[in-house]
Amino acid sequence: MIIKIVTTGGTIDKIYFDRKNEFQVGAPQIGEVLTEANVTLDYEVIQLLRKDSLDLTEADRRLIYETILSDPGRHFVISHGTDTMLLTAKALKKINDKVMVLTGSMQPAKFRQTDAVFNIAAAITAVQLLKPGVYIAMNGRIFDPAKIRKNIELNRFEPIE
Amino acid sequence: MIIKIVTTGGTIDKIYFDRKNEFQVGAPQIGEVLTEANVTLDYEVIQLLRKDSLDLTEADRRLIYETILSDPGRHFVISHGTDTMLLTAKALKKINDKVMVLTGSMQPAKFRQTDAVFNIAAAITAVQLLKPGVYIAMNGRIFDPAKIRKNIELNRFEPIE
Amino acid sequence: MIIKIVTTGGTIDKIYFDRKNEFQVGAPQIGEVLTEANVTLDYEVIQLLRKDSLDLTEADRRLIYETILSDPGRHFVISHGTDTMLLTAKALKKINDKVMVLTGSMQPAKFRQTDAVFNIAAAITAVQLLKPGVYIAMNGRIFDPAKIRKNIELNRFEPIE
Amino acid sequence: MIIKIVTTGGTIDKIYFDRKNEFQVGAPQIGEVLTEANVTLDYEVIQLLRKDSLDLTEADRRLIYETILSDPGRHFVISHGTDTMLLTAKALKKINDKVMVLTGSMQPAKFRQTDAVFNIAAAITAVQLLKPGVYIAMNGRIFDPAKIRKNIELNRFEPIE
Repeated sequence: MIIKIVTTGGTIDKIYFDRKNEFQVGAPQIGEVLTEANVTLDYEVIQLLRKDSLDLTEADRRLIYETILSDPGRHFVISHGTDTMLLTAKALKKINDKVMVLTGSMQPAKFRQTDAVFNIAAAITAVQLLKPGVYIAMNGRIFDPAKIRKNIELNRFEPIE
Repeated sequence: MIIKIVTTGGTIDKIYFDRKNEFQVGAPQIGEVLTEANVTLDYEVIQLLRKDSLDLTEADRRLIYETILSDPGRHFVISHGTDTMLLTAKALKKINDKVMVLTGSMQPAKFRQTDAVFNIAAAITAVQLLKPGVYIAMNGRIFDPAKIRKNIELNRFEPIE
Repeated sequence: MIIKIVTTGGTIDKIYFDRKNEFQVGAPQIGEVLTEANVTLDYEVIQLLRKDSLDLTEADRRLIYETILSDPGRHFVISHGTDTMLLTAKALKKINDKVMVLTGSMQPAKFRQTDAVFNIAAAITAVQLLKPGVYIAMNGRIFDPAKIRKNIELNRFEPIE
Repeated sequence: MIIKIVTTGGTIDKIYFDRKNEFQVGAPQIGEVLTEANVTLDYEVIQLLRKDSLDLTEADRRLIYETILSDPGRHFVISHGTDTMLLTAKALKKINDKVMVLTGSMQPAKFRQTDAVFNIAAAITAVQLLKPGVYIAMNGRIFDPAKIRKNIELNRFEPIE
């Protein structure tokens, strides 16, 4: 099994530029995370987009969809900003024969305290064990995207009651 | 679902005592890891042993077995030193109706660079998705303990050829 | 000797708010840094401002000046954004009988890789050893603020040639 | 000014070897610390010894002494285990025309929480500001080695009352 990792940006890849006094979405962190964990899986990182997920357009979502659809791989982890993760999950639903797990983080991977490493590991694990479909790996759980929402106040994903 | 986390020690929990100029197995780190990841799962930490796994005796392994067998829970993550992880996995094989995932790390969780967070996340994810049985979550993969060995030179688990 | 630590904000205290998708100047990090270093000095943290230094006004600079002038202490570390650190240093020059060391960082203290801890330690050390005057502790060196500039390209302070 | 950094081992450089289930004194960490802090000083790292300071012999101490004595440099930072740091400081006292600052740490530099970065920064700063003599930079302070002791219980250096 080879795992394809499609990176689209989001908080997980945010870095801080002192020159501009601002954060920006930087290069994907996921490769470093997998190396530090001494992962022996076959995987390939596809650097697709580098955007805050609020800035993703319908064209971007179409690009993500087409990229995964046309790729011969069958197991995909998609790193993504959390604000529109559910929209992208919905767009991917039309793909029936692949396992697709979206993940991201609330704190950048570059931070000393972050949920990024945990979430990446959860997605990498889930994509190996699940049957075809679209899933969200966040907050230690594997969700059906149709049944959750992002709780902005508590900064986490929750099941819709 | 409630996940029971049984901690037995190992490198993952090693801390450094300057007073004695040595590493020792300290309090379980897994709770801090789950808090930092903002995990919303129901889980309970059972602090059972605090030993380097080379020091685990048959009596210790029996204790781990009895603890899990008699616990009403059905989903168990066991943190464990890597040197005898396969022995404990073998001892747990007689339990048929529970999902048991063992994990540990090659570098202590207290280190700035460590595989501990990744491995804990992998085990926590796997235990939610797998059917009853005993599994090892290490190096980004989920293994059948009967089919792997620890490669001491490369410091990782590998499938037996 | 008691060291008074006046915090004014800047990159060193930046945190990330996922709710707003932005970095903001958060609570001063210096207390945590001193605790982690097991510092046994007498010190007191005066939380004065919480601003990116580009947003500091003349009124803010006057406040910093008045605060230090009227304080009975004689040893001051001032944490400050780097963009206008030299302006504040200039404003403090009229105070003749106190040791004042300004410091900050190019990467937030919350980052896994940061110059914040090093710079705080440099300032804390310098303030104990220098005679009255205003100094900048950055990039491992102790500078006379009248003789340096911030090199925006290389993201560091340098002597004026 | 060029700062010569003489590394002798100690907790600050301890790493963990899973293969042997033990820590060892590894390669000096100080270069990485200075790089991460974006230090623009001229410095040179002299890797002299790699020992827990309890294992340093009189011959080792003589080697440290001879190395510094015969070196043309005038500013020295010596990284050293804390248990016999005061003995080495005493041996260096016969050198009259150089500034020598010893430092170390109670927690390894490789740890996520450590006093190593702070202590290195303190020593690097102090060596630039002090007049010739031997000093200890620990716990945020600069000590005269003749007037302190290591408090084993509290894991810190303290003035002798």
